[in-house]
Amino acid sequence: MQTVDQIIHAKWIITGENKMLEQHALIVQEGKIQAIVPSDTAAQQYTGKITKKYSTHAIIPGLINAHTHIAMNYFRGFADDLALMNWLNNYIWPAEKQWVNDEFVYDASLFAMAEMIRSGTTCFNDMYFFLPATARAAEISGIRAHIGITVLEFPTQWAQNSAEYLARGLEFLTEYKNHPRITATMAPGHPFTVSDNSFLKIKELADTHNLKINLHLHETADEVNQSVEQYKKRPIKRLHDLGLISERLIAIHMTQLNEEDLGILAASRPSIVHCPESNMKLSSGVCPVEKLKSLGINVALGTDGAASNNDLNMLGEMRSAAFLAKLSTLNPEALNAEEALRMATMNGAKALGAERIIGSIAVGKAADFAAINLDEVETAPLYHPLSQIVYAASRHQVTDVWVAGKQLLKNRQLTTLDEQELRAKAQAWARKISGAKAPCFS
Amino acid sequence: MQTVDQIIHAKWIITGENKMLEQHALIVQEGKIQAIVPSDTAAQQYTGKITKKYSTHAIIPGLINAHTHIAMNYFRGFADDLALMNWLNNYIWPAEKQWVNDEFVYDASLFAMAEMIRSGTTCFNDMYFFLPATARAAEISGIRAHIGITVLEFPTQWAQNSAEYLARGLEFLTEYKNHPRITATMAPGHPFTVSDNSFLKIKELADTHNLKINLHLHETADEVNQSVEQYKKRPIKRLHDLGLISERLIAIHMTQLNEEDLGILAASRPSIVHCPESNMKLSSGVCPVEKLKSLGINVALGTDGAASNNDLNMLGEMRSAAFLAKLSTLNPEALNAEEALRMATMNGAKALGAERIIGSIAVGKAADFAAINLDEVETAPLYHPLSQIVYAASRHQVTDVWVAGKQLLKNRQLTTLDEQELRAKAQAWARKISGAKAPCFS
Repeated sequence: MQTVDQIIHAKWIITGENKMLEQHALIVQEGKIQAIVPSDTAAQQYTGKITKKYSTHAIIPGLINAHTHIAMNYFRGFADDLALMNWLNNYIWPAEKQWVNDEFVYDASLFAMAEMIRSGTTCFNDMYFFLPATARAAEISGIRAHIGITVLEFPTQWAQNSAEYLARGLEFLTEYKNHPRITATMAPGHPFTVSDNSFLKIKELADTHNLKINLHLHETADEVNQSVEQYKKRPIKRLHDLGLISERLIAIHMTQLNEEDLGILAASRPSIVHCPESNMKLSSGVCPVEKLKSLGINVALGTDGAASNNDLNMLGEMRSAAFLAKLSTLNPEALNAEEALRMATMNGAKALGAERIIGSIAVGKAADFAAINLDEVETAPLYHPLSQIVYAASRHQVTDVWVAGKQLLKNRQLTTLDEQELRAKAQAWARKISGAKAPCFS
Repeated sequence: MQTVDQIIHAKWIITGENKMLEQHALIVQEGKIQAIVPSDTAAQQYTGKITKKYSTHAIIPGLINAHTHIAMNYFRGFADDLALMNWLNNYIWPAEKQWVNDEFVYDASLFAMAEMIRSGTTCFNDMYFFLPATARAAEISGIRAHIGITVLEFPTQWAQNSAEYLARGLEFLTEYKNHPRITATMAPGHPFTVSDNSFLKIKELADTHNLKINLHLHETADEVNQSVEQYKKRPIKRLHDLGLISERLIAIHMTQLNEEDLGILAASRPSIVHCPESNMKLSSGVCPVEKLKSLGINVALGTDGAASNNDLNMLGEMRSAAFLAKLSTLNPEALNAEEALRMATMNGAKALGAERIIGSIAVGKAADFAAINLDEVETAPLYHPLSQIVYAASRHQVTDVWVAGKQLLKNRQLTTLDEQELRAKAQAWARKISGAKAPCFS
């Protein structure tokens, strides 16, 4: 008998590698999955310091939200149903200018992490301001974080120009260089907010430090048209000519792709992040996921910020991705439940260059996973657990979540965060932001 | 001081008539809303046999699911991600042929009613077989039901031919003629499953008994093409020539509409039921809701059966309707939160001809409403309660539901149904249906 940190038995383990195991146990030691064995065997071979049984649950790999602006959670529902430029010019940008600072980002990040953990997300890939605040929140919450070094040409409260954004980013990079759960990435905002010169500096830094580069790309037709006007090239061509389209790139949205674009992508193999709900809510368009997959391109899944979604719920995002693929291709076989799960796990890990550490339930990988209780009215009867998870389960059926072996959600209760305090703080910020007009609870 | 059955205080009451009241109370007497008054006034003028306070909740009109096949809940997740004819020919139709009988429909209907009540739906408009079984289930559960007298030309376990379907339907109609919560409608299945002759009989019966007529119409391009081949007319034109397109008609799906179709609809004014999630999952197409609204046509909202959705959750359906409208029109202002709620309430009531009884929270109407707790992480911060309900809330935040003044859900507990028993029964059926191969809980 070997003594191990945790033995976690489950009715089903969906590994994320096209396998579903029944009545198996995960043996967790020092934050990693040491073995995956039948429950009977586990009882004979291991003694757990902690032993848990999830008899009506499926355990899935922790979900990876491959594109977020988590601190925007404080703007959830602040301004909906508006035309894009009205939304940005008259609501989001002024609010960000007035309110976004280190304290805001720290509070809002903790709050967003509570939402992510409560819905089975164990890792996110963020782009925003005041990165150290997001990183401090990740240290406290225990979630796994990839945090983008935002670079823009114009000033915000975080930095005045691209040189300052980069300088601040380098400080951040140095501070978190060897952190086990927090990883820096480069994050130029949009093609139209970053100059050619800055893109070249970003590429150089990314090459030097082996960093992924996040970029909103071909999100809207307007973006493409503006680029053609200004640079006489579509953004993908412009970035390609600058040497930015490569396996290092995480290209987000990609709703506007012609044959030339697809040719560049197929040859240069960046990862794509599909954000179906944000693309629908903002009327951006549809990322041709099936087409990209057929070209062998890695496509991950993200929610975008909660201001344009309005949640960080990857369970729902998988369902929306499947539905939208079926509609947009007029093929009901497109993007099945297994592929949706893969986009939300392994493909996210690949996009982040973390596929040896996370993305599936496998021996040697980090113990990042979530238990979903399927014994509810809404997921009965039960023919295929994975189908129920993608098409019928809702976030509150996620009961338990682990990151690096640490349990962050225990029977629906957060273990590292105080939910009530986070809600109260969110309401306090909302009262400030809306000039005391917010209909808060009295 | 007047003594009344119930005084229900809420932080917000969203009436469904473009009004949000804060700190008001609903005065319920004999199953109806007798008054809506400020909470202070309520305390001074009324004594309630029961008094409740919902201090972090919004009360909304009971949601009306305008198109269902509720007994298909037992086929939820039975066969997903398949091409339509493979799905029907090799999975759904054989399973229905083998298993659908009075007991199946009764058990599955009770089970589906549990799901509907748990997500704030107080009324549904159904088409299936063994109508008396669905009606008995509605009597027990307390939900409001509109039940279609299905008419087909081909045999099922319920009837052998259109004459028998009609005869059974007339029996049903007679039995439930004056029921306060259960209403019969006519329900020819699809244009391609019903002959011209039968349509004329259906119209005659509907006129005689003042019944609405439910019909799947222009759901897919194939349906339209087949009709053009067989009848040399598109289905809408064929039905119009038969006199069926009228205010009496509830036309379901309508994803394929050309100018000629729209002209007929604008002149004849049927109600339309939009089923966005089913249309996406089955790759049917997109109902042009904004266009229909601009023609003054009433558009309600439905889930369709859980086999093609895979839930009966109208909260989620509102969000999907809004998202799909914004994407398909490339206009983020399309179908805002208020319109989504109206489609799921008042427009459903109008489609059913029940707008004087249900569809909004108004004095004299039935006390059909739902309380949603907005004090959760996922609906914070709170700027606009209705935006949070449509775009961020999920079904488990529905805590309390009333139909005709009777409380069917009380702090998440069903009062008329035994949830655990319903889940066990669903699993027992699933084991039979899948030949003991279903991965049920042991």
